[in-house]
Amino acid sequence: MAGFHVHSVLVTGSNRGIGLELIKHFIGKPNPPEVIFATCRDPEGTRAQELKNLAAQHPNVVILQLDTTDPGSIKAAAKKAEAHLGGSGLNLLINNAGIVSPSTLESATSEDMLSVYNTNVVGPLLVTQAFLHLLKKAAQGSNQKGMSCSKAANVNISSVLGSTEKTPETFFVPVVSYRCSKAALNMLTKCQSMGYKDAGILCTALHPGWVKTELGRLAGRGPMGGGDLTVDESVSGIMKVLCNLSEEHHGILVTWEGNTLPW
Amino acid sequence: MAGFHVHSVLVTGSNRGIGLELIKHFIGKPNPPEVIFATCRDPEGTRAQELKNLAAQHPNVVILQLDTTDPGSIKAAAKKAEAHLGGSGLNLLINNAGIVSPSTLESATSEDMLSVYNTNVVGPLLVTQAFLHLLKKAAQGSNQKGMSCSKAANVNISSVLGSTEKTPETFFVPVVSYRCSKAALNMLTKCQSMGYKDAGILCTALHPGWVKTELGRLAGRGPMGGGDLTVDESVSGIMKVLCNLSEEHHGILVTWEGNTLPW
Ligand SMILES: NC(=O)c1ccc[n+]([C@@H]2O[C@H](COP(=O)([O-])OP(=O)(O)OC[C@H]3O[C@@H](n4cnc5c(N)ncnc54)[C@H](OP(=O)(O)O)[C@@H]3O)[C@@H](O)[C@H]2O)c1
Ligand SMILES: NC(=O)c1ccc[n+]([C@@H]2O[C@H](COP(=O)([O-])OP(=O)(O)OC[C@H]3O[C@@H](n4cnc5c(N)ncnc54)[C@H](OP(=O)(O)O)[C@@H]3O)[C@@H](O)[C@H]2O)c1
Repeated sequence: MAGFHVHSVLVTGSNRGIGLELIKHFIGKPNPPEVIFATCRDPEGTRAQELKNLAAQHPNVVILQLDTTDPGSIKAAAKKAEAHLGGSGLNLLINNAGIVSPSTLESATSEDMLSVYNTNVVGPLLVTQAFLHLLKKAAQGSNQKGMSCSKAANVNISSVLGSTEKTPETFFVPVVSYRCSKAALNMLTKCQSMGYKDAGILCTALHPGWVKTELGRLAGRGPMGGGDLTVDESVSGIMKVLCNLSEEHHGILVTWEGNTLPW
Repeated sequence: MAGFHVHSVLVTGSNRGIGLELIKHFIGKPNPPEVIFATCRDPEGTRAQELKNLAAQHPNVVILQLDTTDPGSIKAAAKKAEAHLGGSGLNLLINNAGIVSPSTLESATSEDMLSVYNTNVVGPLLVTQAFLHLLKKAAQGSNQKGMSCSKAANVNISSVLGSTEKTPETFFVPVVSYRCSKAALNMLTKCQSMGYKDAGILCTALHPGWVKTELGRLAGRGPMGGGDLTVDESVSGIMKVLCNLSEEHHGILVTWEGNTLPW
């Protein structure tokens, strides 16, 4: 992973679960990013305590308030990040924040469908919109050839549950609203890969495996590909994948082990 | 098409465009359905005049008020349909109502994303929920083997623009919110195909081609597969496809010409 140096990274939903573990792994790299924007919706709340402890020890960790369902908060975070970067761009944006709720074809409601879509799809769309100029700046300022996370990348944390093709294998997990949202997120990622190609921004959707987090628990545990992973196992895999991402992975859905999933 | 007899059919958004043309083609069949539920959100409005004229001439056409974004109106329509069917089931439910709005990665807003998703995905979900017992009744009451539209079927009118795989070929059409919604609708269709298989209800997503309607115009005309179709051309193709749908087409996306599209 020697060649994998990210000057700046931003992660949404980084106060717990996979997001928090990503922050820890970036901190622990032999060559950590100069700036790690750890965003969460309630930095003052108790759920952000572990993140605050980390930031107190690591001056490169900058906590920003960012609620992905609140356009104003997204724009405010982008302004603060821009000021903090002082003229540099943002190399890597990870849209990680997400929610799940148990829902079957029979039980899914309008409210549930819209709320899950709002967080899991509209959120990533708006966050990338708000940080796009910083990603573009990073791409322009880089002398690296091709595409990579150390140059400029937008990674959306999706799920195998958003793979329509794989649905027959995973249908035992009763999360219809979540499936529809992640299928739409995959489409958004594909659109972003088309729209941001010329700007040199790598756009990839990533399935983190079946991970022991609050969300993983809510979705119902089960024998998903790779079995039940700890967040450390999942994020160790994700870090390797991020290191190796290139134009080959532009506009596709990859797993924490680097395998391609069908739409 | 001799073997294609549908006792009862319901079409959402049937006051204009593809929906209205479907009603006309069902009326014009050599063996028309005994009951054609033509639903629309404003039966008293001027936009429903042509449909009302049709219903005045054809007693098998029953107009029902149904706004796919209003759960109460969906449930009320299902009650009326049940009463009208007097003990029989519903053979064919066509979720056709849909909206589009011009949106790019840059211009898409939260409101636009949620409103398009609400009509194009939440609508079909709720409509199928409300009419499910009638589709099940039709399947149970049928002595036909296998799956078909004349037995029991749920057809969701989707779009090639919801195919993530095909996005590179269609990206010139600037409708990001619509693309995400139709990708999610495809996922919903796949889930429905899994959930309703044992009940014998055929579930298929259908791309009607690039059709000269208000929606087709709003999406921006262009050289889509098949060129610019009149509604009659599109719906003539759709009727043939409906006639031939079988378990082979369960849980897939087919075009008005009967070809399979990738997710
Ligand atoms: N765990 C799995 O097995 C699994 C599998 C496939 C994909 N994923 C995906 O991985 C990502 C992370 O999930 P996780 O397992 O780490 O879940 P998690 O432990 O439940 O954490 C979710 C994170 O998202 C944040 N979040 C939720 N809504 C937010 C909003 N509106 N604004 C900002 N932050 C928000 C939460 O913050 P609060 O503390 O404020 O709620 C929390 O930090 C999600 O996109 C999920 O869909 C997970
Ligand atoms: N035209 C194309 O090229 C094309 C291509 C691919 C897919 N499609 C799909 O084909 C379907 C029909 O489209 P179209 O081209 O016939 O469009 P259209 O001419 O614009 O007609 C849309 C129909 O949907 C109805 N509708 C919209 N929102 C509704 C709601 N909330 N409740 C009930 N009805 C509602 C409209 O009713 P009002 O009159 O009340 O607005 C109208 O009857 C859509 O699902 C569309 O996505 C069309």
